[in-house]
Amino acid sequence: MRTPRRSPDAPADAGRLSPAGVAREPGTARIAVDLLGGDDAPAVVVDGALRALRADPDLHLLLVGPIKVAGALIDALDPAQRARISVRPADTAVDMADDPTVARTETTVRAAVAALREGLADALVSAGSTGATVTAAALGLGRWPQVRRPALAAVLPAVPGPVVLLDVGGSLESSPATLTRHAVLGAAYATVAHGAAAPRVGLLSVGTEPGKGDRARRLADPMLSTAVLPGAARYVGLVEGYDVCLGTRADVVVTDGFTGNVLLKAIEGAYAMAGGSPPGGGAPRAAALLGVAGTVVVCHGAARADDITSGIALAAHLWRQDATDRVAALIAGDRTDRTTDTEVRTS
Amino acid sequence: MRTPRRSPDAPADAGRLSPAGVAREPGTARIAVDLLGGDDAPAVVVDGALRALRADPDLHLLLVGPIKVAGALIDALDPAQRARISVRPADTAVDMADDPTVARTETTVRAAVAALREGLADALVSAGSTGATVTAAALGLGRWPQVRRPALAAVLPAVPGPVVLLDVGGSLESSPATLTRHAVLGAAYATVAHGAAAPRVGLLSVGTEPGKGDRARRLADPMLSTAVLPGAARYVGLVEGYDVCLGTRADVVVTDGFTGNVLLKAIEGAYAMAGGSPPGGGAPRAAALLGVAGTVVVCHGAARADDITSGIALAAHLWRQDATDRVAALIAGDRTDRTTDTEVRTS
Repeated sequence: MRTPRRSPDAPADAGRLSPAGVAREPGTARIAVDLLGGDDAPAVVVDGALRALRADPDLHLLLVGPIKVAGALIDALDPAQRARISVRPADTAVDMADDPTVARTETTVRAAVAALREGLADALVSAGSTGATVTAAALGLGRWPQVRRPALAAVLPAVPGPVVLLDVGGSLESSPATLTRHAVLGAAYATVAHGAAAPRVGLLSVGTEPGKGDRARRLADPMLSTAVLPGAARYVGLVEGYDVCLGTRADVVVTDGFTGNVLLKAIEGAYAMAGGSPPGGGAPRAAALLGVAGTVVVCHGAARADDITSGIALAAHLWRQDATDRVAALIAGDRTDRTTDTEVRTS
Repeated sequence: MRTPRRSPDAPADAGRLSPAGVAREPGTARIAVDLLGGDDAPAVVVDGALRALRADPDLHLLLVGPIKVAGALIDALDPAQRARISVRPADTAVDMADDPTVARTETTVRAAVAALREGLADALVSAGSTGATVTAAALGLGRWPQVRRPALAAVLPAVPGPVVLLDVGGSLESSPATLTRHAVLGAAYATVAHGAAAPRVGLLSVGTEPGKGDRARRLADPMLSTAVLPGAARYVGLVEGYDVCLGTRADVVVTDGFTGNVLLKAIEGAYAMAGGSPPGGGAPRAAALLGVAGTVVVCHGAARADDITSGIALAAHLWRQDATDRVAALIAGDRTDRTTDTEVRTS
């Protein structure tokens, strides 16, 4: 793609509007919601947005979609809640069968990205086509330096602590360079979002002995061994499928977007079959997009209302933590920036 | 590899010794067990073999490994049980770090394959290096016509019935031709081993819409749409990770060995996290090798004693069902053969 790394339209501080970067939880969070994204949109999105609004009194929503749909949602609110709503009209959903890289009409997800870029929202949530959201975000917000492929990071509960799994479908590329870059993103995310002191980063493969795996893993393993990881993160070598759920070997599990996507859904299926999720929650149905200059959360296409609510809560949480900018700063080694105020919890 | 499709040493009826192919369950099954295969071998293998022998009075075991290890197992048996044991001495385990395609000394798994080829055992079980087992079996027993890459098939419980997942690590190759061939193998296995009337075959991808997935899936999907599947099997298109556990969309889920392997272990991890397996059992820790002229079961490298017992029971079950030959016959369209006696349950 010929996308500039940072769109010329994107303000330098896109994705952060508070003056000092102090911890903003609680605090106002203005989330753009793609009303037409998802298999069961707009119904479940409207329902999920309503629930989020009721649960979080500091949440403001920018509804991006048809006026009629937004109107139905607004009718369900009391006057105080209505004061926390704004609307950006857009009428076209992404057709899942369309090529998401081809621009035709203004889709809801592109309108939501534009709102973020213009400073009208702090973060965005979409359950629409992942490809369309990633493309719109990369084009509209710009990518971080050295990030060609933004990664979707999902967080799974495990006994020793949360496990970051990435990429779960940001791209379907599995080159050793992309795997290595994603390891850096994941390590920074675990440090910032989970306060992991020294996250252990593993590369997903079919065994733990060096040399196990397909060509991409066999090349990425030595590359990761010598890669400079952010903060106090360290590479622990190859890990296996169980490690994604159990967390015993790694806090960050790196894989390509194809494998990560099918893996996450298989885990979700297993929890459903086992009759319930483990303590701390099951397979997440929302993931953070890492590598673009803004806070973007992608929900599962088959999202239910409570998944949308969780996605909005994740977006608000990341914004309030100033996570996106802190991850970017950590990767850039730019720790003299405002991140010194909030201090990355690495001790 | 330059392996002949059928080893010149392999007898034409390798893997089937009963005269008429009638259902042999119960009936004598002689299983070769690789005593040195697995992370915790020989202890867990000895333990697992003992349990299998006690559970199944028609089971005979050919212990393949060091005489001393076999002797310790035999000492734990009463005279009647001892009558169901034979031993084939072999002292070298496969070193997991070695290249499994390089022949150096006689390993336990190669000795076990030789025993199968010579008609001294009906099936073999190993928890050693998958690569070494697949290579030894392909070289020693020969591969079926048109099968370049034998596939490991795992069976997961689901509400509508069992789901066959393949390949779970027989090879790490993901070419469209291999995926298509493995779909044929999986469909025949579901028909024969589970009596599936008209198995639904799905290709694992990141979404169900045509065009979803990486290059291999995008090419394999149309190839599978026109492929001739055995019996009454039909291709249902792309499926997702949940379908592996839930079984709502497909009875056979086809993927490459890398993805299948990490997926299966992730499902195992999820069941462990959820505090238990679903009714009907959880993630299998033994898989059948399809595409070689003999009954071969591969156990998990981290197998515990009960996994070895399950692997031996699976091998005995497949042998008693005459599954290997019936699958081969179904694929070859050779339904005038002895399979007419046992009649594939397609109605």
